[in-house]
Amino acid sequence: MAPQSPSSARAALFDVDGTLVDSNYLHVRAWQRAFREIGHDVDAWRVHRAIGLDSSLLLESLLGDDADSLGDRAKDLHMTYYLGARDSMRPLAGARELVRELHGRGVQVVLATSASEEELDVLREVLSVDSCIAHTTSAADVDRAKPDPGVIRAAMDRSSTSGETAVMVGDAVWDAEAASRAGVTFVGLLSGGISRAELEAAGAEAVFEDAQDLLDRLDSSPLARLLSL
Amino acid sequence: MAPQSPSSARAALFDVDGTLVDSNYLHVRAWQRAFREIGHDVDAWRVHRAIGLDSSLLLESLLGDDADSLGDRAKDLHMTYYLGARDSMRPLAGARELVRELHGRGVQVVLATSASEEELDVLREVLSVDSCIAHTTSAADVDRAKPDPGVIRAAMDRSSTSGETAVMVGDAVWDAEAASRAGVTFVGLLSGGISRAELEAAGAEAVFEDAQDLLDRLDSSPLARLLSL
Repeated sequence: MAPQSPSSARAALFDVDGTLVDSNYLHVRAWQRAFREIGHDVDAWRVHRAIGLDSSLLLESLLGDDADSLGDRAKDLHMTYYLGARDSMRPLAGARELVRELHGRGVQVVLATSASEEELDVLREVLSVDSCIAHTTSAADVDRAKPDPGVIRAAMDRSSTSGETAVMVGDAVWDAEAASRAGVTFVGLLSGGISRAELEAAGAEAVFEDAQDLLDRLDSSPLARLLSL
Repeated sequence: MAPQSPSSARAALFDVDGTLVDSNYLHVRAWQRAFREIGHDVDAWRVHRAIGLDSSLLLESLLGDDADSLGDRAKDLHMTYYLGARDSMRPLAGARELVRELHGRGVQVVLATSASEEELDVLREVLSVDSCIAHTTSAADVDRAKPDPGVIRAAMDRSSTSGETAVMVGDAVWDAEAASRAGVTFVGLLSGGISRAELEAAGAEAVFEDAQDLLDRLDSSPLARLLSL
């Protein structure tokens, strides 16, 4: 069931890493290996907290002054190691089922990520719910990733929705900040490994354990608003 | 400089994984691989939150009813994969320096862990501050690991300290709970990837980013009490 008319357009905007696919911890490992190879030991917890952040900001925050000279090499190495972990990637609990349920109830599912096209192809293959995804964004759509609101705005443009007819679901503080700047309600999930208190402090209207928990309590969640539009 | 007499005995009890060595995220990966091999996909964030917990409790919480039949095999596989990551293990920022400083100021440094002897050997080799470590505990000393207070009590017995003359430093909610049950002040570090709010809620008197941050602010931390005894 698809939206009947532009006036009924409504969308759930999803971050992908740590929200739909269990990839945050693979990103941590890939960045750590990349940083070590360029001569920087960066502790895992600091990398974890920067996952989902625009990569230039991630590099600045973790490499400091060396980001300019070494950042591009680190990005290339990260991508090689990350894509090399393809076989370890799995959808998070309930991710596929939640996407299917929203699609079935007439809500556009939009992947609002700044992953590269290559990464996004892998993530979509892992998810295997392509027929239920209305739109996607990728690195090609935005100059700067989260917490810049550009990704969210692109996702809303594409789905013909607004702050009244869209809800963003993500696992990172950066998702919450981007949603807030774009004027969209944010629902946080713990499945990326970031705590409830941090997601709430960053503006989450509600926090669920994972996609399965959100699906189980969908009708009392902030997404219920979309279902009744 | 060693304590002058039993009356001046004082000790800093340290958890090791995630507190002194950057190994929590390696444990997550090793458990995930082990679980997958026995037919269980467990999302990374759930494994992360169970790190530091007694392994039988970790297995019960993550495998449910299959813990009895598959737990031993999972433990063996985890140990193989974890020890196989030996080359990726590094001390956390400031860990060595903090241990050396406390030792130099007459505080016994005790590794209060329930790691196996084999794991502990690897962790000590990674840390490379053996001459500054007064005592250790390991799996051989306790029937059940954290949050059971047995590990902390063994560490206090060995260092001839009490709740008045010891402070526990760790990164996990389980460290905080074990310390609380043993009647010892707990100082939390964020370096294991668990949030400030969770550590505080579990009873941390103070929370620092990592060993380096604690070292930088040692004289205004709960450890200052030990230094002035």
